[in-house]
Amino acid sequence: MSALTFQAWSGAHQNRFEDVLRNVLPSADVAPERLHAAMRYSVLDGGKRVRPLLAFAAGELAGADVSRVNFAAAAVELIHAYSLVHDDMPCMDDDVLRRGKPTCHVQFDEATALLVGDALQSLAFQLLAEHSLTDDPARQLQMLKLLAAASGSRGMAGGQAIDLESVGKQLTLPELEFMHIHKTGALIRAAVLLGAYCSAALDDVKLNRLNRFSKCVGLAFQVVDDVLDSEADTATLGKTAGKDADNDKPTYVTLLGVQAAKKMAAELHVEALDALAGFGEEARRLRELANFIVLRKY
Amino acid sequence: MSALTFQAWSGAHQNRFEDVLRNVLPSADVAPERLHAAMRYSVLDGGKRVRPLLAFAAGELAGADVSRVNFAAAAVELIHAYSLVHDDMPCMDDDVLRRGKPTCHVQFDEATALLVGDALQSLAFQLLAEHSLTDDPARQLQMLKLLAAASGSRGMAGGQAIDLESVGKQLTLPELEFMHIHKTGALIRAAVLLGAYCSAALDDVKLNRLNRFSKCVGLAFQVVDDVLDSEADTATLGKTAGKDADNDKPTYVTLLGVQAAKKMAAELHVEALDALAGFGEEARRLRELANFIVLRKY
Repeated sequence: MSALTFQAWSGAHQNRFEDVLRNVLPSADVAPERLHAAMRYSVLDGGKRVRPLLAFAAGELAGADVSRVNFAAAAVELIHAYSLVHDDMPCMDDDVLRRGKPTCHVQFDEATALLVGDALQSLAFQLLAEHSLTDDPARQLQMLKLLAAASGSRGMAGGQAIDLESVGKQLTLPELEFMHIHKTGALIRAAVLLGAYCSAALDDVKLNRLNRFSKCVGLAFQVVDDVLDSEADTATLGKTAGKDADNDKPTYVTLLGVQAAKKMAAELHVEALDALAGFGEEARRLRELANFIVLRKY
Repeated sequence: MSALTFQAWSGAHQNRFEDVLRNVLPSADVAPERLHAAMRYSVLDGGKRVRPLLAFAAGELAGADVSRVNFAAAAVELIHAYSLVHDDMPCMDDDVLRRGKPTCHVQFDEATALLVGDALQSLAFQLLAEHSLTDDPARQLQMLKLLAAASGSRGMAGGQAIDLESVGKQLTLPELEFMHIHKTGALIRAAVLLGAYCSAALDDVKLNRLNRFSKCVGLAFQVVDDVLDSEADTATLGKTAGKDADNDKPTYVTLLGVQAAKKMAAELHVEALDALAGFGEEARRLRELANFIVLRKY
């Protein structure tokens, strides 16, 4: 698909990936029907699918079979979706709108939202365990470990915990970075690396470049999110705007100001592209995704 | 340890296993400290460790290395512990007492309890992925798939969802069984099979016997739980007694009456032992666990 524009490439993957998600999620006809309907509601028809696109782009760079990357991308997206469902609950961010729709606990109920998140997490690991993602099962176990570590208390869930503790506090820039490297960065890194690991073609030097790229992109993603949250309106974002400042949560904008936050995003953008300098045309989609993540308006 | 009484055998494993759990849980000195403290609070120093004991007993039957079974048992117990933390939350059972201590959301807060459950689930899969549980990584992937399926929407989380929907309803006996086969049975079955899978010694005939045993024990466990809940007091149970009936939840006792429920437990006990009839002394601990599960008073 190298002749396609980025828009055509990402649109094609997004459409195709929606079918992948439809197929891996249990049918709403299967008991427990309401739980399965709520799982599908929370995952399908929403989001930019940035993490799956990163997995597909890294998979293309590595020459991985897209039918394998599908499951890696789906696993990462299910973890992301579960975290949004739990994060929106009243005991966390108490949000009523997500991706332009009522959040899961509003559309269903809190107990169902709790179980939706729990079951989506299980399903993510089930996908990585039951499908052949590489020719080497030992390598596949490493992929499972990577996703579990990225999701857990020293990854995404840990970042959420630090986020909770930070409400009303003045964080330093390193503390804010530490929080976001866990909360957002860990899963974005996992998306890139899991896509690449579906092929055995990359040596450690190349994987290290991808690792560096993914860290810069993960942090840039959050800085841009903070800028957009401070500037955009709710209709454009598809979620409640200005919430972080309202909730007295530290952000790159509250800490640095909007101009310095934009400058930081631009520097991370340069560093992400620099990490890919040793690659040629095969890294095109990753470069385009870095551009998209930093330059997006929603 | 075949010369030990059951009490001595189980006590030795319980003590030893507590150290296993202490070691696999992140230290409360590591950031995010409060989350890690809450994870340790929710898992350590509590419970009869029935699922780990089943894994150890099945591992002994199969001749598995106990250092491998440790991680399988810990993974199952972490899934169980996460389900209790989430189940106790206000949007689910809203319980304040568990294992004689304040529940996680009471001792810490609701948001932390939510993240504790999420992070414990990730950690369970991380353990199964990062430690060598068998000589065959492909077999280990099967073990991960088994635990993920037992935990998810067609396993434990699905059973919880059916449980939620059943409040105030008159279920039939098959419906009640369907609920408990998912809610309690799936994880008990996983404990037995994962313990056995740590060795490659058992053929399909023997594994099928264990499968049948685990299903009977899983259901018996729940029937006995319902009987105890209807008869015991809160101090003996270490959790709020009489809750299910108070919450208008169908149980084996409300459906069958206490005498018929006891008869059902006794029949499942006989069937569980019958499933082990083809084994000799090597199944001793599994037989003793079946006896313990059915005859326990708390």
